[in-house]
Amino acid sequence: MHSYKELVALFEQYHSKQKFDERYDVYRAMKYIMGMSSKRVRPVLTLMGCELFGGDYKSAMASAFALEVYHNSTLVHDDIMDKATTRRGNPTVHKRYGVNVAINTGDMMFTEAYKYLGKANHASTNELFEIFNTSVIKIVKGQSLDMEFESRDDVSEQEYLEMIDGKTSVLLACALQIGALLAGADKKSQKLIFDFGLNLGISFQILDDYLDAFGDPKLVGKRPGGDILMNKKTILFIKALELASPKQKQQIEKLLMEKDKNKKVTTMYALMEQTGAKEYTEKLIDKYYKKSLKNLKSITVTEERKQPLLELAQLLRAREK
Amino acid sequence: MHSYKELVALFEQYHSKQKFDERYDVYRAMKYIMGMSSKRVRPVLTLMGCELFGGDYKSAMASAFALEVYHNSTLVHDDIMDKATTRRGNPTVHKRYGVNVAINTGDMMFTEAYKYLGKANHASTNELFEIFNTSVIKIVKGQSLDMEFESRDDVSEQEYLEMIDGKTSVLLACALQIGALLAGADKKSQKLIFDFGLNLGISFQILDDYLDAFGDPKLVGKRPGGDILMNKKTILFIKALELASPKQKQQIEKLLMEKDKNKKVTTMYALMEQTGAKEYTEKLIDKYYKKSLKNLKSITVTEERKQPLLELAQLLRAREK
Repeated sequence: MHSYKELVALFEQYHSKQKFDERYDVYRAMKYIMGMSSKRVRPVLTLMGCELFGGDYKSAMASAFALEVYHNSTLVHDDIMDKATTRRGNPTVHKRYGVNVAINTGDMMFTEAYKYLGKANHASTNELFEIFNTSVIKIVKGQSLDMEFESRDDVSEQEYLEMIDGKTSVLLACALQIGALLAGADKKSQKLIFDFGLNLGISFQILDDYLDAFGDPKLVGKRPGGDILMNKKTILFIKALELASPKQKQQIEKLLMEKDKNKKVTTMYALMEQTGAKEYTEKLIDKYYKKSLKNLKSITVTEERKQPLLELAQLLRAREK
Repeated sequence: MHSYKELVALFEQYHSKQKFDERYDVYRAMKYIMGMSSKRVRPVLTLMGCELFGGDYKSAMASAFALEVYHNSTLVHDDIMDKATTRRGNPTVHKRYGVNVAINTGDMMFTEAYKYLGKANHASTNELFEIFNTSVIKIVKGQSLDMEFESRDDVSEQEYLEMIDGKTSVLLACALQIGALLAGADKKSQKLIFDFGLNLGISFQILDDYLDAFGDPKLVGKRPGGDILMNKKTILFIKALELASPKQKQQIEKLLMEKDKNKKVTTMYALMEQTGAKEYTEKLIDKYYKKSLKNLKSITVTEERKQPLLELAQLLRAREK
């Protein structure tokens, strides 16, 4: 068994050995984004999912790499859609190589992900592809909803949860389940580890939205209120609107058009507190976090084996409020 | 065994029964492009490849559908990259739904293709995915080269062939091989049918370029000379430059900047004839066509079984000069 740090190092070792034909711009662009600093959460989850059930991490390494390549392919395409200019402090792929190369790079990386999944050389390859395909479809649906929400003011909590489910949680869950599958875990255990990843991912994503508004800028690493300025339909916004009195509702709707950035952010903060949306969101983060711990607890392996995943969960939860 | 026409009808029957969740824009966009009129060459090739080796076409139908969905996903992304506004007489997906939805739709269709490939429910699923992955990687490389050629005047014949290999031929070859695999054809036969598709595809693509310059506009269905006006690095252009005398070479290079459309096209026609590029291209089309027929001939099944593929090859070759 290995710690998070050790698994990242083992992953980077494998990563550095993979060679791609850099005569093609798509592979140069792939190398560029894959080389950006990253926490490597998804591949590590695959390796942890494998070790949790007594598997050899080596047997899951190609799949772990597949997950990271796929994740990065979504970043390349999402950055085009979001017109993002920087990613992890570097120019985004489409800023550096142009939109056409970026579209093509995402497509190439998507295929490379499938190629690496096929390397698992495991009796259950079909199941592996099925888990992955089902997850990818949810991810694209999540992206579709996220874009649709931009032009809507009536997003429900359930729709929001479906969206973040796809955008973040499903791939974490999928990464864990693939590791478990490769270690030979039974269906029930696979479901439990999937749910652990899903609930932890939901908790993490809601916390992310929460910190964007109420986080300590020194600890979060960015100026707070970005989501508010962009009128993003986060759970804080959705709940504030839902719990608001008719008068508060009018205030929120007026704020959507407010040009004074400072006024917009501070008034929205106050409304999120007054309506109870802030408190509701705090509880929701805890609810999903506790759900995830319950999932992990139900898995019938020794407590010792669960330690790395438990530590990872605590790490993700403990980010500064 | 079935004719081309019959297989198209069977494919459309299957197609019409597939249901997708149209609450999502990506599935509405998928339905839109999949519903455009199309010759359905790729899925029919999968079905023909299966029947050639005595397989039941039904066992290859999900894969045939996967090939068509994948092909259409590349059209969605390619149309964005080419800034194309119409496709088969209709607005392109990104024109109708916006670039973001189009990027996301291509990604979704790509995954759906893998999902349908996974439905083959065949002992050789791993091989099937490998054939498909290898082909897709060549296709993306072909697209990468095609874009790169736009800014280069020194494209070689070999590079051009690698590019059209990826852009057109590989998927035709892949479609046939997957059908053959599903019918239980041995490796040698799979290689032959793959090569048949590859060579036929190359011949077809060169003919396509040839007709763009020298085709009868009434029969080709578009105004000739489009590639010349766009300075496209077709084999006609590459060969004209290669075979040109120093004086002709100067003329060609000057023509690249020529603003008078009529002059540009007619002068280039003359140069393509004078340099021998036109004749060379005609011979090249025949060379690859004959190669493909030789591949088909080498396959050890009855001549009767080969009939539908032979007819298809003749049909593709016999387009109006």
